[in-house]
Amino acid sequence: MTYIEDLGRQAKAAARVVRLLSAQAKNDALEAIAVALLEQQTEILAANERDLENGRQNGLTTALLERLTLTEARIQGMVDGLRQIAALPDPILKTDSQWVNKDGLRISRRRVPLGVVGIIYESRPNVTVDASALCLKAGNAVILRGGKEALESNQAIVAAVQAGLAKSKVPSTAVQLITDPSRELATEFMQLNQYVDCLVPRGGAGLIQAVLRQATVPVIETGVGNCHLYVHTEADFEQAYNILLNGKLQRPSVCNALENLLVDAEFAEKFLPEATAALIDAGVEILGDEKVVELVPQATLATDEDYATEFLDYRIAVKIVDNYEEAVAHIERFSTGHSDAIVTKDYSTAQHFLNDIDSACVYVNASTRFSDGEVFGFGGELGISTQKLHARGPMGLEALTSYKYVIEGDGQVRA
Amino acid sequence: MTYIEDLGRQAKAAARVVRLLSAQAKNDALEAIAVALLEQQTEILAANERDLENGRQNGLTTALLERLTLTEARIQGMVDGLRQIAALPDPILKTDSQWVNKDGLRISRRRVPLGVVGIIYESRPNVTVDASALCLKAGNAVILRGGKEALESNQAIVAAVQAGLAKSKVPSTAVQLITDPSRELATEFMQLNQYVDCLVPRGGAGLIQAVLRQATVPVIETGVGNCHLYVHTEADFEQAYNILLNGKLQRPSVCNALENLLVDAEFAEKFLPEATAALIDAGVEILGDEKVVELVPQATLATDEDYATEFLDYRIAVKIVDNYEEAVAHIERFSTGHSDAIVTKDYSTAQHFLNDIDSACVYVNASTRFSDGEVFGFGGELGISTQKLHARGPMGLEALTSYKYVIEGDGQVRA
Repeated sequence: MTYIEDLGRQAKAAARVVRLLSAQAKNDALEAIAVALLEQQTEILAANERDLENGRQNGLTTALLERLTLTEARIQGMVDGLRQIAALPDPILKTDSQWVNKDGLRISRRRVPLGVVGIIYESRPNVTVDASALCLKAGNAVILRGGKEALESNQAIVAAVQAGLAKSKVPSTAVQLITDPSRELATEFMQLNQYVDCLVPRGGAGLIQAVLRQATVPVIETGVGNCHLYVHTEADFEQAYNILLNGKLQRPSVCNALENLLVDAEFAEKFLPEATAALIDAGVEILGDEKVVELVPQATLATDEDYATEFLDYRIAVKIVDNYEEAVAHIERFSTGHSDAIVTKDYSTAQHFLNDIDSACVYVNASTRFSDGEVFGFGGELGISTQKLHARGPMGLEALTSYKYVIEGDGQVRA
Repeated sequence: MTYIEDLGRQAKAAARVVRLLSAQAKNDALEAIAVALLEQQTEILAANERDLENGRQNGLTTALLERLTLTEARIQGMVDGLRQIAALPDPILKTDSQWVNKDGLRISRRRVPLGVVGIIYESRPNVTVDASALCLKAGNAVILRGGKEALESNQAIVAAVQAGLAKSKVPSTAVQLITDPSRELATEFMQLNQYVDCLVPRGGAGLIQAVLRQATVPVIETGVGNCHLYVHTEADFEQAYNILLNGKLQRPSVCNALENLLVDAEFAEKFLPEATAALIDAGVEILGDEKVVELVPQATLATDEDYATEFLDYRIAVKIVDNYEEAVAHIERFSTGHSDAIVTKDYSTAQHFLNDIDSACVYVNASTRFSDGEVFGFGGELGISTQKLHARGPMGLEALTSYKYVIEGDGQVRA
C-alpha cells in the first residue's frame, strides 16, 4: 500500500465514523479545533514565518507572499469561521422527499455526506481550516493537498486540527494533509477512485485545468469568472455607475469581479465617458471596440482574446452593443458561466435576461461581487462552481452532501 | 474544426434553443418523434436486419444478438416510452427555493437544463430513443455514441428522430449520432469540455471504466451492482425466501439482481438448505464459505474475488455471519454502493441498517430488483448512478437538470 493509498484508506475509515455522528458531536469537534488553533498559535505563526522566509528567498511575488501570510488576526478569523460553521443547521439525514410507489414501497430520499473529499489548493493557508470545517460539518472526511509554498504552515495548522479532533468523537484521520508535495503523488491522489468520492480544486485556471485533465475521481470545477455587466438603454444611470465601479474596483483580484462591460449604444454616449473617467482615475486600463475608442480617447483597441480574458486586475474590456440580442450573444460567446449582470429599469428585459443568460449567477440591478456563499447566506463556501454537474455557483454545506434512497417494504418482490 | 467539434458546436447551439422552449413545445417534439418512428419502421427494421447479419457473420453471442434485435413490438415500446415521458411534469424553471439575503437581494434557485449531454452506450438500439427523449424533455441537446454493432440501426432511428424534430420547434441537431465508430473520435468526444456538459456511459464495467479514465468532461458513473441481501436472525422466513429468489432469479443479467447472500448463523441452519435447494433447482451455482459448504454440500468454496464479483449470471456468493456487525462490515467491503437489502422483523435493526449502509438504494424487507427509475415513479431512467456526485441511484428527469441562481436587486453594491 502506497503512502497515498494509506491516506485514502484512513480517510475512508474516518468517513464511516463521521457519517453517523450527531450534529452536536460534529459541532463539538469544530469547537475543539478552534481551541487547539488558539493554543498552538505560536507554533503556527513560527511555521508560517519559515514559509515566508523560504518564499522571499525563492522570489515569490508580493501578492503571493501576502496570501501566504498568517497573523494573529487571521488565525482569529479562522476560529470565527469555525464557530460560524458550527452554528449552521446540520445538512445530514434531512429527508428531501418521501412517497409510496405503486408496489406499496415507502421510498425516502435522505441527505448523506459525500464521503471523502479531496481539496487541492494553492498557497492560502486559511483554506486548510475553512475547507476542513465545511467538510466535517457535512459529515465528510477530507484529504488536503496544499501548495508547497505553504507546507510548513499547513503542517502546523493540521497538527492543531488533529489535536483538536483527538479531544472529540471525530477521528483525527478525518483531516489529513499530503505532506509530500511531489507531482507524482498529486496525480496518484487524483486517481484514487477507490477511496476519494470527489475532488475540489481551489486556485487559478492552471491548477483547475491540470486537475480536470489528470483526475479520474469526479471533480467540481470552480472559479474562473469572466463576469459581464450589461448596461441596458433603460438603465438607471446611478445604479449602473455604482454597480460598474463596485464590480471592477472593490476587489479586482477575485473571481466575481467584473471583467467586461457592455453598453447599449444610445446609453453609451452619456454613460461611458463619465463611467470610464472614474475607472481611469482609479487606475483601470480601458480596452474597447472602435466605438468605445471614439468616445474614450484613453481606451485602446480590444481583441477577442481580451474579451475572453479573466484579467483579475485593473483592466476592463468594453463593448458598445446595438441592442439586447447583441449583448446576450456576446455574453454567451465569452462568459465562463460564473456571474453576469444587467442594469435596466425595464421589467420585461430584466425577466428575459434572467432566462436567457446561462450562468451560475445571473443578476438584475446588483453587483456581481455578491456571488459568495457567505453573502448568499450559506455561512461559508468551498468555492464557486462553474460546472453544471452536482453543484453550481457558491457551494455551501449542501454541495458537500449526496443523497441515498431508503426503501421500506413488507416483503415485496418484483413481478 | 473537426467532425466532433462540429457536432459539439451544433449541439450547443441547439441546446440554447431547447433550453427556452415551453413544456408543450418539447412534448409536441416527442410526439413528432413517435409518429416518425412508426412511419419509418420499415427502414429501421431493414437497417437492424443489416446489423444482425453483420453480427452473425462476426460471431456475436446469442445474448448480444438478442439485445441488438428490433421488432415491431420493440419499436412500439419506444413509442410508448416517448409518450410516457411526454406525459411527465416538466422539470425546468421550477424554483427550488427563494429567499431575501441580508443585503435585500432576492435570490432564487431555478432548475435549468444541463445543456449538452453525451451518451456512450453499447448495442441496445432502444437506448437511442429512450435517452434522447429524457434529455429533450429536460431541455437538453444530446450527442449519442452507440456501439458499432448497432450503427445501421442507430442511424435509421436517428434519421427518424431528426425527421420528427424537423416538424417541431426543437432543432433537429438537438439529437445527433456519432456515425464514425473509431476510438480516436470517442476519445475526442470525451474531452470536448467546450461543448459537452456531462457524459453518461451506459453499459458494462469495461465501457464505464474506459470513459472514467479518458474523459475530461464530467461523467456520471452508472451501473455496476454487486448487490447484497442480508437475512437477519429475526427475518420472516417466507419474506427472506421470496426476496432471495426474486433478487437472484427474476432477471439475473441486470445490475439490481442479487449477487451476494449473507445469513445470520442462527437463521442459516433452517433457512439455507431450503433456500439454496430452490436456487440450485433453478440452475444457480452456490459459492460459499466453509460453514455454507457444511450446510449445502453442492456449494463450492468462495474466494474474496467471488464476493467482489458482479456475476450477472446464475451464480451467488453466500456467507454465514455471526452477527449484524459482521454483515455490515462485509457489505461495506464488497458492495459497489448500488442496492443492498436486509430482511428483518426487528425495528431497531432495520433502522440501523438504513443508516449504516452507504449505498444508493438501501432496502428493508423488499427485493433489490426494485431499483429502477420507472418503478420508483420517475417515468423512466437514464441509468442508475453509483457515484455520489450530482445524482445517485435511478436517474430520472431531475438528474438531467442543473440549477442557476437568479439575483434581483435594486442597485445594491458590495460594501
